[in-house]
Amino acid sequence: MRRLSLNQWTTRRWSVPEAVDGCVRHGIEAIGLWREQVGEYGLAASVAAVAGAGLRVSSLCRGGFLTSGGALRDNRRAVDEAAALGAACLVMVVGGLPGVPPGGEPRPGFSRDLPGARERVREALDALVPYAAERGVRLALEPLHPMYCADRAVLSTLGQALDLAAPYPAERVGVVVDAFHVWWDPALPEQLARAGAARRIASYQVCDWPQPLPADVLLGRAMMGDGVIDLGALTDAVAAAGYTGDVEVEIFNAALWAADPDEVLTTMKSRYRSEILRA
Amino acid sequence: MRRLSLNQWTTRRWSVPEAVDGCVRHGIEAIGLWREQVGEYGLAASVAAVAGAGLRVSSLCRGGFLTSGGALRDNRRAVDEAAALGAACLVMVVGGLPGVPPGGEPRPGFSRDLPGARERVREALDALVPYAAERGVRLALEPLHPMYCADRAVLSTLGQALDLAAPYPAERVGVVVDAFHVWWDPALPEQLARAGAARRIASYQVCDWPQPLPADVLLGRAMMGDGVIDLGALTDAVAAAGYTGDVEVEIFNAALWAADPDEVLTTMKSRYRSEILRA
Repeated sequence: MRRLSLNQWTTRRWSVPEAVDGCVRHGIEAIGLWREQVGEYGLAASVAAVAGAGLRVSSLCRGGFLTSGGALRDNRRAVDEAAALGAACLVMVVGGLPGVPPGGEPRPGFSRDLPGARERVREALDALVPYAAERGVRLALEPLHPMYCADRAVLSTLGQALDLAAPYPAERVGVVVDAFHVWWDPALPEQLARAGAARRIASYQVCDWPQPLPADVLLGRAMMGDGVIDLGALTDAVAAAGYTGDVEVEIFNAALWAADPDEVLTTMKSRYRSEILRA
Repeated sequence: MRRLSLNQWTTRRWSVPEAVDGCVRHGIEAIGLWREQVGEYGLAASVAAVAGAGLRVSSLCRGGFLTSGGALRDNRRAVDEAAALGAACLVMVVGGLPGVPPGGEPRPGFSRDLPGARERVREALDALVPYAAERGVRLALEPLHPMYCADRAVLSTLGQALDLAAPYPAERVGVVVDAFHVWWDPALPEQLARAGAARRIASYQVCDWPQPLPADVLLGRAMMGDGVIDLGALTDAVAAAGYTGDVEVEIFNAALWAADPDEVLTTMKSRYRSEILRA
Protein backbone atom coordinates (compact mmCIF):
# COMPACT_ATOMS: atom_id res chain seq x y z
CA MET A 1 0.00 0.00 0.00
CA ARG A 2 3.00 2.31 0.20
CA ARG A 3 2.58 3.66 -3.34
CA LEU A 4 -1.09 4.57 -2.93
CA SER A 5 -1.73 8.31 -3.18
CA LEU A 6 -4.95 10.19 -2.53
CA ASN A 7 -5.68 12.78 -5.16
CA GLN A 8 -7.42 15.53 -3.26
CA TRP A 9 -10.38 15.79 -5.67
CA THR A 10 -11.42 12.24 -4.78
CA THR A 11 -12.46 13.79 -1.46
CA ARG A 12 -13.13 17.17 -2.93
CA ARG A 13 -14.88 18.75 0.03
CA TRP A 14 -11.87 18.23 2.29
CA SER A 15 -9.54 21.19 2.74
CA VAL A 16 -5.77 20.63 2.60
CA PRO A 17 -5.41 19.97 6.37
CA GLU A 18 -8.48 17.72 6.37
CA ALA A 19 -7.11 15.68 3.45
CA VAL A 20 -3.66 15.51 5.07
CA ASP A 21 -5.19 14.33 8.35
CA GLY A 22 -7.30 11.82 6.43
CA CYS A 23 -4.20 10.36 4.77
CA VAL A 24 -2.46 10.06 8.13
CA ARG A 25 -5.54 8.47 9.72
CA HIS A 26 -5.76 5.89 6.92
CA GLY A 27 -2.05 5.19 6.60
CA ILE A 28 -1.74 6.76 3.14
CA GLU A 29 1.72 8.14 2.51
CA ALA A 30 1.23 10.39 -0.52
CA ILE A 31 -1.20 13.04 -1.68
CA GLY A 32 -1.98 14.78 -4.96
CA LEU A 33 -2.96 18.38 -4.18
CA TRP A 34 -5.14 20.83 -6.09
CA ARG A 35 -4.27 24.47 -6.51
CA GLU A 36 -7.78 25.59 -5.58
CA GLN A 37 -7.57 24.06 -2.11
CA VAL A 38 -3.93 25.03 -1.65
CA GLY A 39 -4.91 28.61 -2.46
CA GLU A 40 -7.76 28.53 0.03
CA TYR A 41 -5.62 27.20 2.86
CA GLY A 42 -2.53 29.18 1.87
CA LEU A 43 0.65 27.95 0.22
CA ALA A 44 2.95 28.21 3.26
CA ALA A 45 0.40 26.53 5.51
CA SER A 46 -0.09 23.75 2.95
CA VAL A 47 3.66 23.21 2.71
CA ALA A 48 3.81 22.98 6.51
CA ALA A 49 0.85 20.59 6.67
CA VAL A 50 2.26 18.02 4.25
CA ALA A 51 5.76 18.34 5.70
CA GLY A 52 4.47 17.97 9.24
CA ALA A 53 2.62 14.81 8.29
CA GLY A 54 5.57 13.43 6.35
CA LEU A 55 3.53 12.98 3.17
CA ARG A 56 4.95 12.85 -0.34
CA VAL A 57 3.24 15.24 -2.75
CA SER A 58 2.76 12.99 -5.75
CA SER A 59 1.45 15.82 -7.94
CA LEU A 60 0.05 19.31 -7.99
CA CYS A 61 -3.07 19.68 -10.13
CA ARG A 62 -3.01 21.58 -12.27
CA GLY A 63 -1.34 23.92 -14.67
CA GLY A 64 -2.19 24.25 -18.31
CA PHE A 65 -5.03 25.80 -20.32
CA LEU A 66 -2.23 27.04 -22.52
CA THR A 67 -4.58 27.89 -25.38
CA SER A 68 -6.10 30.78 -23.41
CA GLY A 69 -4.73 34.30 -23.10
CA GLY A 70 -2.59 35.03 -20.04
CA ALA A 71 -1.79 31.37 -19.52
CA LEU A 72 1.94 31.83 -19.02
CA ARG A 73 1.59 34.08 -16.00
CA ASP A 74 -0.75 31.69 -14.20
CA ASN A 75 1.39 28.69 -15.09
CA ARG A 76 4.48 30.35 -13.65
CA ARG A 77 2.57 30.72 -10.38
CA ALA A 78 1.62 27.04 -10.58
CA VAL A 79 5.30 26.14 -11.06
CA ASP A 80 6.24 28.22 -8.02
CA GLU A 81 3.60 26.43 -5.96
CA ALA A 82 4.75 23.00 -7.14
CA ALA A 83 8.33 23.94 -6.22
CA ALA A 84 7.31 25.11 -2.75
CA LEU A 85 5.32 21.93 -2.15
CA GLY A 86 8.09 19.68 -3.45
CA ALA A 87 5.54 18.07 -5.78
CA ALA A 88 6.83 15.21 -7.90
CA CYS A 89 5.24 16.92 -10.90
CA LEU A 90 2.90 19.67 -12.01
CA VAL A 91 0.04 18.09 -13.96
CA MET A 92 -0.70 20.01 -17.17
CA VAL A 93 -4.19 19.94 -18.69
CA VAL A 94 -3.31 21.81 -21.83
CA GLY A 95 -6.64 23.40 -22.73
CA GLY A 96 -9.15 23.07 -25.56
CA LEU A 97 -9.99 25.15 -28.60
CA PRO A 98 -9.47 28.90 -28.02
CA GLY A 99 -12.79 30.41 -26.94
CA VAL A 100 -14.36 27.13 -25.82
CA PRO A 101 -14.62 27.23 -21.99
CA PRO A 102 -14.50 23.96 -20.01
CA GLY A 103 -17.99 22.47 -19.93
CA GLY A 104 -19.51 25.55 -21.50
CA GLU A 105 -20.72 26.80 -24.85
CA PRO A 106 -18.30 28.22 -27.38
CA ARG A 107 -18.01 31.99 -27.12
CA PRO A 108 -18.59 34.15 -30.20
CA GLY A 109 -15.46 34.13 -32.32
CA PHE A 110 -14.17 30.83 -30.89
CA SER A 111 -11.69 28.91 -33.02
CA ARG A 112 -12.25 25.61 -34.84
CA ASP A 113 -8.55 25.43 -35.72
CA LEU A 114 -7.46 22.30 -33.87
CA PRO A 115 -3.97 22.03 -35.41
CA GLY A 116 -3.50 25.71 -34.56
CA ALA A 117 -4.52 25.10 -30.93
CA ARG A 118 -2.06 22.23 -30.72
CA GLU A 119 0.68 24.47 -32.08
CA ARG A 120 -0.21 27.11 -29.50
CA VAL A 121 0.24 24.49 -26.75
CA ARG A 122 3.66 23.63 -28.12
CA GLU A 123 4.74 27.26 -28.14
CA ALA A 124 3.44 27.95 -24.63
CA LEU A 125 5.16 24.84 -23.31
CA ASP A 126 8.39 25.95 -24.91
CA ALA A 127 8.14 29.23 -23.00
CA LEU A 128 7.28 27.55 -19.70
CA VAL A 129 9.81 24.70 -19.58
CA PRO A 130 12.89 26.85 -18.82
CA TYR A 131 11.07 28.54 -15.94
CA ALA A 132 10.04 25.17 -14.49
CA ALA A 133 13.50 23.72 -15.03
CA GLU A 134 15.12 26.55 -13.07
CA ARG A 135 12.84 25.73 -10.14
CA GLY A 136 13.33 21.97 -10.38
CA VAL A 137 9.69 21.31 -11.29
CA ARG A 138 8.80 18.51 -13.66
CA LEU A 139 5.86 19.25 -15.95
CA ALA A 140 3.57 16.27 -16.58
CA LEU A 141 1.57 16.50 -19.80
CA GLU A 142 -1.79 14.81 -19.40
CA PRO A 143 -3.57 13.46 -22.45
CA LEU A 144 -7.29 13.69 -21.77
CA HIS A 145 -9.97 11.44 -23.23
CA PRO A 146 -10.89 12.64 -26.73
CA MET A 147 -14.38 13.59 -25.52
CA TYR A 148 -12.70 16.57 -23.80
CA CYS A 149 -10.81 17.68 -26.90
CA ALA A 150 -12.95 20.74 -27.58
CA ASP A 151 -13.02 22.27 -24.13
CA ARG A 152 -10.28 20.88 -21.88
CA ALA A 153 -7.36 19.32 -23.72
CA VAL A 154 -6.40 19.23 -27.37
CA LEU A 155 -3.84 16.69 -26.12
CA SER A 156 -5.74 13.45 -26.70
CA THR A 157 -3.37 10.47 -26.77
CA LEU A 158 -0.28 9.25 -24.98
CA GLY A 159 1.61 9.16 -28.26
CA GLN A 160 0.80 12.81 -28.89
CA ALA A 161 1.94 13.69 -25.35
CA LEU A 162 5.24 11.90 -25.89
CA ASP A 163 5.75 13.76 -29.17
CA LEU A 164 5.12 17.04 -27.35
CA ALA A 165 7.52 16.12 -24.55
CA ALA A 166 10.26 14.81 -26.85
CA PRO A 167 12.28 18.04 -27.29
CA TYR A 168 12.89 18.34 -23.53
CA PRO A 169 14.83 16.22 -21.05
CA ALA A 170 12.67 13.51 -19.43
CA GLU A 171 13.34 14.87 -15.94
CA ARG A 172 11.86 18.22 -17.02
CA VAL A 173 8.83 17.10 -19.05
CA GLY A 174 7.00 13.83 -18.47
CA VAL A 175 3.51 12.50 -19.13
CA VAL A 176 0.54 11.43 -17.03
CA VAL A 177 -0.97 8.00 -17.62
CA ASP A 178 -4.54 8.27 -16.38
CA ALA A 179 -6.50 5.05 -16.80
CA PHE A 180 -9.77 6.84 -17.54
CA HIS A 181 -8.26 8.88 -20.35
CA VAL A 182 -6.13 6.26 -22.11
CA TRP A 183 -7.69 2.82 -21.58
CA TRP A 184 -9.41 2.72 -24.99
CA ASP A 185 -6.31 3.58 -27.05
CA PRO A 186 -5.33 0.81 -29.49
CA ALA A 187 -1.78 2.24 -29.55
CA LEU A 188 -1.48 2.12 -25.74
CA PRO A 189 0.82 -0.91 -25.42
CA GLU A 190 3.45 0.50 -27.78
CA GLN A 191 3.15 4.04 -26.39
CA LEU A 192 3.48 2.85 -22.79
CA ALA A 193 6.62 0.97 -23.76
CA ARG A 194 7.90 4.07 -25.52
CA ALA A 195 7.11 6.21 -22.46
CA GLY A 196 8.91 3.75 -20.22
CA ALA A 197 12.00 3.51 -22.41
CA ALA A 198 12.23 7.31 -22.41
CA ARG A 199 11.56 7.54 -18.63
CA ARG A 200 8.67 9.88 -19.30
CA ILE A 201 5.97 8.48 -17.00
CA ALA A 202 5.67 11.16 -14.33
CA SER A 203 2.33 10.09 -12.86
CA TYR A 204 -0.01 7.11 -12.94
CA GLN A 205 -3.60 7.93 -12.02
CA VAL A 206 -6.38 5.40 -11.62
CA CYS A 207 -10.16 5.33 -11.50
CA ASP A 208 -12.67 3.44 -13.65
CA TRP A 209 -14.91 4.07 -16.67
CA PRO A 210 -18.56 3.74 -15.67
CA GLN A 211 -20.95 2.34 -18.21
CA PRO A 212 -23.17 4.04 -19.19
CA LEU A 213 -21.64 7.48 -18.66
CA PRO A 214 -23.67 9.85 -16.46
CA ALA A 215 -25.25 13.03 -17.85
CA ASP A 216 -22.27 15.22 -16.95
CA VAL A 217 -19.33 13.50 -18.62
CA LEU A 218 -16.82 15.42 -16.50
CA LEU A 219 -18.06 13.53 -13.45
CA GLY A 220 -18.23 10.22 -15.28
CA ARG A 221 -15.51 8.50 -13.30
CA ALA A 222 -15.99 5.53 -11.05
CA MET A 223 -14.22 3.85 -8.14
CA MET A 224 -11.81 1.16 -9.32
CA GLY A 225 -13.76 -2.03 -9.95
CA ASP A 226 -17.05 -0.23 -10.64
CA GLY A 227 -16.37 0.18 -14.35
CA VAL A 228 -15.10 -1.62 -17.42
CA ILE A 229 -11.35 -0.90 -17.43
CA ASP A 230 -8.99 -3.84 -17.00
CA LEU A 231 -6.96 -2.00 -14.34
CA GLY A 232 -4.89 -5.06 -13.52
CA ALA A 233 -3.59 -5.37 -17.06
CA LEU A 234 -2.97 -1.63 -17.31
CA THR A 235 -1.08 -1.59 -14.00
CA ASP A 236 1.05 -4.48 -15.22
CA ALA A 237 1.85 -2.59 -18.43
CA VAL A 238 2.78 0.56 -16.50
CA ALA A 239 5.01 -1.50 -14.21
CA ALA A 240 6.59 -3.24 -17.21
CA ALA A 241 7.37 0.23 -18.54
CA GLY A 242 9.50 0.75 -15.45
CA TYR A 243 7.26 3.09 -13.47
CA THR A 244 7.80 2.72 -9.72
CA GLY A 245 6.22 5.96 -8.47
CA ASP A 246 2.99 6.66 -6.65
CA VAL A 247 -0.38 5.43 -7.88
CA GLU A 248 -2.80 8.29 -7.48
CA VAL A 249 -6.51 7.68 -7.13
CA GLU A 250 -8.36 10.57 -8.79
CA ILE A 251 -12.12 10.22 -9.09
CA PHE A 252 -14.51 12.96 -10.21
CA ASN A 253 -17.88 11.60 -9.12
CA ALA A 254 -20.84 13.44 -7.64
CA ALA A 255 -21.95 10.51 -5.46
CA LEU A 256 -18.47 10.08 -3.99
CA TRP A 257 -18.22 13.81 -3.35
CA ALA A 258 -21.50 13.61 -1.41
CA ALA A 259 -20.34 10.62 0.67
CA ASP A 260 -18.41 10.65 3.95
CA PRO A 261 -14.76 11.11 2.88
CA ASP A 262 -13.53 8.65 5.49
CA GLU A 263 -15.76 5.98 3.98
CA VAL A 264 -14.46 6.90 0.53
CA LEU A 265 -10.89 6.34 1.76
CA THR A 266 -11.80 2.99 3.28
CA THR A 267 -13.34 1.88 -0.02
CA MET A 268 -10.45 3.32 -1.97
CA LYS A 269 -7.90 1.31 0.03
CA SER A 270 -9.94 -1.86 -0.34
CA ARG A 271 -10.31 -1.41 -4.10
CA TYR A 272 -6.67 -0.45 -4.49
CA ARG A 273 -5.83 -3.77 -2.90
CA SER A 274 -8.29 -5.84 -4.97
CA GLU A 275 -8.10 -4.06 -8.35
CA ILE A 276 -4.58 -2.60 -8.52
CA LEU A 277 -2.47 -4.84 -6.27
CA ARG A 278 -4.78 -7.83 -6.82
CA ALA A 279 -3.75 -9.09 -3.41
CA MET B 1 -25.01 19.29 -54.43
CA ARG B 2 -24.84 16.07 -56.43
CA ARG B 3 -22.76 14.23 -53.82
CA LEU B 4 -25.04 15.05 -50.90
CA SER B 5 -26.67 11.98 -49.37
CA LEU B 6 -29.35 11.82 -46.69
CA ASN B 7 -28.61 9.24 -44.06
CA GLN B 8 -32.01 7.98 -43.06
CA TRP B 9 -31.45 8.44 -39.30
CA THR B 10 -31.15 12.18 -39.77
CA THR B 11 -34.89 12.04 -40.40
CA ARG B 12 -35.41 9.00 -38.27
CA ARG B 13 -39.20 9.03 -38.10
CA TRP B 14 -39.50 8.77 -41.87
CA SER B 15 -40.11 5.31 -43.30
CA VAL B 16 -38.17 4.20 -46.39
CA PRO B 17 -40.75 5.51 -48.89
CA GLU B 18 -41.12 8.75 -46.95
CA ALA B 19 -37.36 9.29 -46.94
CA VAL B 20 -37.12 8.39 -50.63
CA ASP B 21 -39.91 10.83 -51.46
CA GLY B 22 -38.21 13.46 -49.30
CA CYS B 23 -34.97 13.06 -51.25
CA VAL B 24 -36.80 13.40 -54.56
CA ARG B 25 -38.72 16.46 -53.32
CA HIS B 26 -35.50 18.16 -52.21
CA GLY B 27 -33.36 17.14 -55.19
CA ILE B 28 -31.11 14.83 -53.17
CA GLU B 29 -29.69 12.02 -55.31
CA ALA B 30 -28.42 9.55 -52.70
CA ILE B 31 -29.62 7.96 -49.50
CA GLY B 32 -28.05 5.97 -46.67
CA LEU B 33 -30.59 3.41 -45.47
CA TRP B 34 -30.99 1.72 -42.09
CA ARG B 35 -31.81 -1.94 -41.72
CA GLU B 36 -34.52 -1.25 -39.14
CA GLN B 37 -36.57 0.84 -41.56
CA VAL B 38 -35.79 -1.44 -44.52
CA GLY B 39 -37.07 -4.34 -42.45
CA GLU B 40 -40.25 -2.52 -41.55
CA TYR B 41 -41.06 -1.58 -45.13
CA GLY B 42 -39.75 -4.82 -46.60
CA LEU B 43 -36.55 -5.45 -48.53
CA ALA B 44 -38.14 -5.93 -51.98
CA ALA B 45 -40.33 -2.86 -51.55
CA SER B 46 -37.32 -0.82 -50.41
CA VAL B 47 -35.31 -1.96 -53.43
CA ALA B 48 -38.20 -0.93 -55.68
CA ALA B 49 -38.60 2.43 -53.94
CA VAL B 50 -34.98 3.53 -54.36
CA ALA B 51 -34.80 2.14 -57.90
CA GLY B 52 -38.05 3.83 -58.87
CA ALA B 53 -36.74 7.16 -57.60
CA GLY B 54 -33.35 6.66 -59.25
CA LEU B 55 -31.48 7.19 -55.97
CA ARG B 56 -28.01 5.88 -55.22
CA VAL B 57 -27.79 3.92 -51.95
CA SER B 58 -24.64 5.40 -50.46
CA SER B 59 -24.63 2.95 -47.55
CA LEU B 60 -26.63 0.45 -45.58
CA CYS B 61 -26.40 0.92 -41.81
CA ARG B 62 -25.43 -1.29 -40.23
CA GLY B 63 -23.76 -4.60 -39.73
CA GLY B 64 -21.35 -5.40 -36.96
CA PHE B 65 -21.58 -6.03 -33.22
CA LEU B 66 -19.14 -8.82 -33.99
CA THR B 67 -18.20 -9.27 -30.33
CA SER B 68 -21.65 -10.72 -29.51
CA GLY B 69 -22.74 -14.29 -29.97
CA GLY B 70 -24.59 -15.12 -33.19
CA ALA B 71 -23.18 -12.11 -34.97
CA LEU B 72 -22.17 -13.93 -38.13
CA ARG B 73 -25.68 -15.06 -38.97
CA ASP B 74 -27.14 -11.56 -38.63
CA ASN B 75 -24.26 -10.04 -40.57
CA ARG B 76 -24.80 -12.42 -43.46
CA ARG B 77 -28.38 -11.18 -43.61
CA ALA B 78 -27.09 -7.62 -43.60
CA VAL B 79 -24.78 -8.46 -46.51
CA ASP B 80 -27.69 -9.96 -48.44
CA GLU B 81 -29.73 -6.82 -47.87
CA ALA B 82 -26.85 -4.57 -48.94
CA ALA B 83 -26.46 -6.65 -52.10
CA ALA B 84 -30.17 -6.44 -52.91
CA LEU B 85 -30.18 -2.69 -52.40
CA GLY B 86 -27.01 -2.18 -54.42
CA ALA B 87 -25.56 -0.24 -51.47
CA ALA B 88 -22.11 1.25 -52.04
CA CYS B 89 -21.10 -0.29 -48.71
CA LEU B 90 -22.35 -2.01 -45.58
CA VAL B 91 -21.34 0.11 -42.58
CA MET B 92 -19.87 -2.02 -39.79
CA VAL B 93 -20.11 -0.86 -36.17
CA VAL B 94 -17.97 -3.61 -34.72
CA GLY B 95 -19.35 -3.84 -31.17
CA GLY B 96 -18.00 -3.17 -27.69
CA LEU B 97 -16.79 -5.37 -24.86
CA PRO B 98 -18.60 -8.73 -24.72
CA GLY B 99 -21.50 -8.42 -22.28
CA VAL B 100 -21.72 -4.62 -22.40
CA PRO B 101 -24.94 -3.71 -24.27
CA PRO B 102 -25.13 -0.42 -26.22
CA GLY B 103 -26.06 2.36 -23.82
CA GLY B 104 -26.71 -0.09 -20.99
CA GLU B 105 -25.05 -1.45 -17.90
CA PRO B 106 -22.58 -4.32 -18.15
CA ARG B 107 -24.25 -7.70 -17.62
CA PRO B 108 -22.91 -10.07 -14.95
CA GLY B 109 -19.87 -11.84 -16.32
CA PHE B 110 -19.09 -9.15 -18.91
CA SER B 111 -15.54 -8.99 -20.19
CA ARG B 112 -12.94 -6.28 -19.51
CA ASP B 113 -10.58 -7.87 -22.04
CA LEU B 114 -10.29 -5.14 -24.67
CA PRO B 115 -7.44 -6.72 -26.69
CA GLY B 116 -9.47 -9.95 -26.67
CA ALA B 117 -12.55 -8.15 -27.98
CA ARG B 118 -10.48 -6.59 -30.74
CA GLU B 119 -9.15 -10.02 -31.68
CA ARG B 120 -12.71 -11.34 -31.77
CA VAL B 121 -13.62 -8.61 -34.24
CA ARG B 122 -10.70 -9.58 -36.44
CA GLU B 123 -11.74 -13.22 -36.45
CA ALA B 124 -15.41 -12.48 -37.17
CA LEU B 125 -14.44 -10.15 -40.00
CA ASP B 126 -12.25 -12.83 -41.47
CA ALA B 127 -15.25 -15.17 -41.54
CA LEU B 128 -17.56 -12.56 -43.05
CA VAL B 129 -15.41 -11.07 -45.81
CA PRO B 130 -15.60 -14.08 -48.21
CA TYR B 131 -19.40 -14.12 -47.91
CA ALA B 132 -19.59 -10.39 -48.67
CA ALA B 133 -17.08 -10.70 -51.50
CA GLU B 134 -19.15 -13.39 -53.21
CA ARG B 135 -22.13 -11.03 -53.17
CA GLY B 136 -20.15 -7.99 -54.31
CA VAL B 137 -20.71 -6.11 -51.05
CA ARG B 138 -18.01 -3.82 -49.68
CA LEU B 139 -17.73 -3.80 -45.91
CA ALA B 140 -16.97 -0.37 -44.42
CA LEU B 141 -15.32 -0.49 -41.00
CA GLU B 142 -16.37 2.48 -38.90
CA PRO B 143 -14.11 3.68 -36.11
CA LEU B 144 -16.34 5.20 -33.45
CA HIS B 145 -15.38 7.94 -31.02
CA PRO B 146 -13.46 6.45 -28.08
CA MET B 147 -16.31 7.35 -25.72
CA TYR B 148 -18.22 4.46 -27.32
CA CYS B 149 -15.39 1.95 -26.88
CA ALA B 150 -17.02 -0.01 -24.07
CA ASP B 151 -20.47 -0.51 -25.54
CA ARG B 152 -20.51 0.11 -29.29
CA ALA B 153 -17.15 -0.18 -30.99
CA VAL B 154 -13.77 -1.35 -29.81
CA LEU B 155 -12.63 0.10 -33.14
CA SER B 156 -11.62 3.61 -32.05
CA THR B 157 -9.32 5.20 -34.62
CA LEU B 158 -8.93 5.43 -38.36
CA GLY B 159 -5.46 3.94 -38.11
CA GLN B 160 -6.81 0.93 -36.25
CA ALA B 161 -9.54 0.51 -38.89
CA LEU B 162 -6.96 0.59 -41.68
CA ASP B 163 -4.87 -2.04 -39.86
CA LEU B 164 -7.97 -4.22 -39.57
CA ALA B 165 -8.82 -3.76 -43.26
CA ALA B 166 -5.27 -4.29 -44.50
CA PRO B 167 -5.40 -8.07 -45.13
CA TYR B 168 -8.28 -7.69 -47.60
CA PRO B 169 -8.56 -6.07 -51.02
CA ALA B 170 -9.65 -2.43 -50.81
CA GLU B 171 -12.72 -3.06 -52.94
CA ARG B 172 -13.90 -5.63 -50.37
CA VAL B 173 -13.10 -3.86 -47.09
CA GLY B 174 -12.97 -0.11 -46.70
CA VAL B 175 -13.37 2.37 -43.85
CA VAL B 176 -15.88 5.03 -42.87
CA VAL B 177 -14.62 8.53 -42.13
CA ASP B 178 -17.26 10.08 -39.87
CA ALA B 179 -16.40 13.62 -38.83
CA PHE B 180 -17.95 13.24 -35.38
CA HIS B 181 -15.90 10.17 -34.58
CA VAL B 182 -12.49 11.16 -35.95
CA TRP B 183 -12.15 14.96 -35.78
CA TRP B 184 -10.10 14.96 -32.55
CA ASP B 185 -7.48 12.43 -33.71
CA PRO B 186 -3.95 13.87 -33.82
CA ALA B 187 -2.99 11.12 -36.29
CA LEU B 188 -5.86 12.00 -38.65
CA PRO B 189 -3.89 13.79 -41.39
CA GLU B 190 -1.45 10.91 -41.88
CA GLN B 191 -4.16 8.23 -41.55
CA LEU B 192 -6.42 10.00 -44.07
CA ALA B 193 -3.52 10.11 -46.50
CA ARG B 194 -2.85 6.44 -45.85
CA ALA B 195 -6.53 5.61 -46.38
CA GLY B 196 -6.55 7.54 -49.62
CA ALA B 197 -3.38 5.96 -50.97
CA ALA B 198 -4.86 2.52 -50.26
CA ARG B 199 -8.27 3.49 -51.77
CA ARG B 200 -9.95 2.47 -48.50
CA ILE B 201 -12.36 5.37 -47.94
CA ALA B 202 -15.76 3.78 -48.53
CA SER B 203 -17.91 6.44 -46.91
CA TYR B 204 -17.61 10.03 -45.69
CA GLN B 205 -20.21 11.01 -43.10
CA VAL B 206 -20.67 14.48 -41.70
CA CYS B 207 -22.33 16.15 -38.74
CA ASP B 208 -20.89 18.35 -35.99
CA TRP B 209 -19.68 18.01 -32.38
CA PRO B 210 -21.93 20.06 -30.08
CA GLN B 211 -20.30 21.70 -27.09
CA PRO B 212 -21.17 20.88 -24.37
CA LEU B 213 -22.38 17.34 -25.09
CA PRO B 214 -25.99 16.61 -24.11
CA ALA B 215 -26.86 14.15 -21.32
CA ASP B 216 -27.24 11.21 -23.70
CA VAL B 217 -23.93 11.11 -25.53
CA LEU B 218 -25.35 8.89 -28.27
CA LEU B 219 -27.53 11.78 -29.39
CA GLY B 220 -24.76 14.32 -29.04
CA ARG B 221 -24.49 15.17 -32.70
CA ALA B 222 -25.26 18.50 -34.25
CA MET B 223 -26.13 19.92 -37.64
CA MET B 224 -23.06 20.99 -39.57
CA GLY B 225 -22.05 24.46 -38.41
CA ASP B 226 -23.65 24.09 -34.97
CA GLY B 227 -20.55 22.57 -33.38
CA VAL B 228 -16.79 22.91 -33.15
CA ILE B 229 -15.48 20.72 -35.99
CA ASP B 230 -13.60 22.41 -38.82
CA LEU B 231 -15.64 20.57 -41.46
CA GLY B 232 -14.14 22.60 -44.29
CA ALA B 233 -10.61 21.49 -43.47
CA LEU B 234 -11.70 17.89 -42.96
CA THR B 235 -13.57 17.85 -46.27
CA ASP B 236 -10.48 19.22 -48.00
CA ALA B 237 -8.35 16.47 -46.45
CA VAL B 238 -10.83 13.77 -47.51
CA ALA B 239 -10.86 15.20 -51.04
CA ALA B 240 -7.05 15.35 -51.07
CA ALA B 241 -7.09 11.66 -50.15
CA GLY B 242 -8.89 11.05 -53.44
CA TYR B 243 -12.41 10.39 -52.19
CA THR B 244 -15.01 11.38 -54.74
CA GLY B 245 -18.04 9.49 -53.38
CA ASP B 246 -21.17 10.63 -51.64
CA VAL B 247 -21.12 12.83 -48.56
CA GLU B 248 -23.67 11.43 -46.17
CA VAL B 249 -25.28 13.58 -43.51
CA GLU B 250 -25.92 11.43 -40.45
CA ILE B 251 -27.14 13.23 -37.33
CA PHE B 252 -28.39 11.56 -34.15
CA ASN B 253 -30.14 14.41 -32.36
CA ALA B 254 -33.36 14.38 -30.36
CA ALA B 255 -34.36 17.93 -31.34
CA LEU B 256 -33.88 17.21 -35.05
CA TRP B 257 -35.85 13.99 -34.74
CA ALA B 258 -38.72 15.96 -33.21
CA ALA B 259 -38.65 18.59 -35.98
CA ASP B 260 -40.47 18.54 -39.32
CA PRO B 261 -38.25 16.35 -41.55
CA ASP B 262 -38.80 18.64 -44.54
CA GLU B 263 -37.41 21.54 -42.54
CA VAL B 264 -34.47 19.37 -41.50
CA LEU B 265 -33.72 18.67 -45.17
CA THR B 266 -33.92 22.34 -46.05
CA THR B 267 -31.47 23.20 -43.27
CA MET B 268 -29.27 20.25 -44.20
CA LYS B 269 -28.96 21.44 -47.80
CA SER B 270 -28.21 24.98 -46.70
CA ARG B 271 -25.55 23.85 -44.25
CA TYR B 272 -24.08 21.41 -46.73
CA ARG B 273 -23.60 24.37 -49.05
CA SER B 274 -22.13 26.69 -46.42
CA GLU B 275 -20.07 24.27 -44.31
CA ILE B 276 -19.05 21.48 -46.70
CA LEU B 277 -19.01 23.10 -50.15
CA ARG B 278 -18.30 26.56 -48.69
CA ALA B 279 -20.08 28.03 -51.69
